[in-house]
Amino acid sequence: MSEGGEGNRAYGHKAFKRSKSHFADRITADGQDGWPVESGRYRLVVSRACPWASRALVARRLLGLEDALSLAVVDPIQDDRSWRFTLDPGGRDPVLGIRYLSEAYDRRETGYPGGVSVPAIVDVPSGALVTNDFQQITLDLATQWTELHRPGAPDLYPPELRDEIDTVTAEVYQDVNNGVYRAGFATNQEEYEAACAGVFRRLELLAQRLAGQRYLVGDTITEADIRLFTTLVRFDAVYHGHFKCNLWKLVENPVLWAYARDLYQTPGFGDTVDFDHIKRHYYQVHTGINPTGIVPLGPETSGWLTPHHREELGGRPFGEGTAPGPVRDGEEVPPQGRA
Amino acid sequence: MSEGGEGNRAYGHKAFKRSKSHFADRITADGQDGWPVESGRYRLVVSRACPWASRALVARRLLGLEDALSLAVVDPIQDDRSWRFTLDPGGRDPVLGIRYLSEAYDRRETGYPGGVSVPAIVDVPSGALVTNDFQQITLDLATQWTELHRPGAPDLYPPELRDEIDTVTAEVYQDVNNGVYRAGFATNQEEYEAACAGVFRRLELLAQRLAGQRYLVGDTITEADIRLFTTLVRFDAVYHGHFKCNLWKLVENPVLWAYARDLYQTPGFGDTVDFDHIKRHYYQVHTGINPTGIVPLGPETSGWLTPHHREELGGRPFGEGTAPGPVRDGEEVPPQGRA
Repeated sequence: MSEGGEGNRAYGHKAFKRSKSHFADRITADGQDGWPVESGRYRLVVSRACPWASRALVARRLLGLEDALSLAVVDPIQDDRSWRFTLDPGGRDPVLGIRYLSEAYDRRETGYPGGVSVPAIVDVPSGALVTNDFQQITLDLATQWTELHRPGAPDLYPPELRDEIDTVTAEVYQDVNNGVYRAGFATNQEEYEAACAGVFRRLELLAQRLAGQRYLVGDTITEADIRLFTTLVRFDAVYHGHFKCNLWKLVENPVLWAYARDLYQTPGFGDTVDFDHIKRHYYQVHTGINPTGIVPLGPETSGWLTPHHREELGGRPFGEGTAPGPVRDGEEVPPQGRA
Repeated sequence: MSEGGEGNRAYGHKAFKRSKSHFADRITADGQDGWPVESGRYRLVVSRACPWASRALVARRLLGLEDALSLAVVDPIQDDRSWRFTLDPGGRDPVLGIRYLSEAYDRRETGYPGGVSVPAIVDVPSGALVTNDFQQITLDLATQWTELHRPGAPDLYPPELRDEIDTVTAEVYQDVNNGVYRAGFATNQEEYEAACAGVFRRLELLAQRLAGQRYLVGDTITEADIRLFTTLVRFDAVYHGHFKCNLWKLVENPVLWAYARDLYQTPGFGDTVDFDHIKRHYYQVHTGINPTGIVPLGPETSGWLTPHHREELGGRPFGEGTAPGPVRDGEEVPPQGRA
């Protein structure tokens, strides 16, 4: 699939449909699209609010690509020109020198009329966007950037498991990753109910699958876990209330809550998560469903650090590899001010 | 206190302030205000959606006043003329013969410019509103209508406990009953946070109080329990998501969840609760905070009937009295279609 990540036109008056990524060039080992893998050449632009961008944040950490692929984090609140670098000194990205991510889009295609979305990878020398194809970016980090991986990096997309990973991630995408958006941005009761019921039907099936095995596919962390995690970690904070996916909270489902905590407590997952960015983005940007822009105080997040006991199921989180080291200086998530 | 129940002007652009009940005549044994207690003379008008009106529904059941005080249930969705009898054949209340509750207000005071609220008690012979004073109505049902109580009716407001009941209910009113509304209808972050924090601070204190005793005051059900119950039973269904009181769900607090289930499973409480009316009212009427009018599928409500084990704390639910009998024909809450 090649559809857009978190853009600035998140909903409209019709049934919610995620728009296709317009820029789907790939950065590959062989440079087939003109963009060869090269250390220090590209910049990954993310919002920590965005589940699609957060996949790349997690993969980059697990694979140890911090030195090879630098990181820019946008303000969680877009304005009418979309994602902006207002968290940086002077409101400009220090490497790209731009104030809005849209400037990198413009350098790639003048007057591009589509939405600006994250994740985005920008070519630093030209300042032009290379790709905003959130479905492909993490797969290429796992399989094309291998020569730049850290020692001990896990194989997140092992050839022998790709069919199974692709099947699981397609179901998770349709029903869960994107299902919560279809529920939240539904403009009538029927659309909403179909999407919400689909979310929970799939979550129940995933809970069954995960009751007896530690990870979604095989016995190690893969791309499939990354993609489920970035939705689960947002579930109680925003999808439950703001998107009305409220049959139950994640904390009420013993299997999925333990699974999500296991990943959260694994280096490379929880250390990328900024609940403050997540909550402010969803509740302040989507004025069509939250006109007051008020950001809830809850839910309490201290539970994410409680014991999960999933290690009793066995599994080898990083396969033959090892856990990533600490978060690099300057990339730490600020202390979370709220419960 | 003498402030208004669930009216048709539930929020505005200023800090939410519940308006005062304009009609505060009392129906008493001695008829001091011209309205003597009399079997069959008055009609109680409620919305099953409304927590203030539901207090009267519960008290009437516990006290066995069904024959003495007849019941009208309005549509949970007001229109621009407010509460209406669209659930009744022909859209008219079969006893009062009116289509809108406002007609009873008009018969009491022509051109009354205030809001129309429930609970309301109407004088059947004249068709005029007697009172919409939700804070006083249940106290008078308990203390003035005694000669019409069923045999075995409990004393919901025992003289020796009134000071304590008044203290507890004042705190519960400020922080919880009305606190959830101040959170939900806040128009800025500060107002919201103060109200929401106050809700949970009080709930934590109430949980401490209820950890070792079965009921709020003394060892029997009193007015204080009725007033807390009608908010708690709505908590996860509407206040948690719609009003953003989301530090935790009721089901996540072991003491309060057990306490609420204990009452819910007590005849006279749960049999008055219509989750469908509750959810449709809040989510469809408050378009200022839910512009789509979409009603969430959740939360699951089957948990309300699970064992609570509160009987281990002792207590005598009805004191020297007995439980009320079954719900009378025609007053049953319809089977709930949703989870």
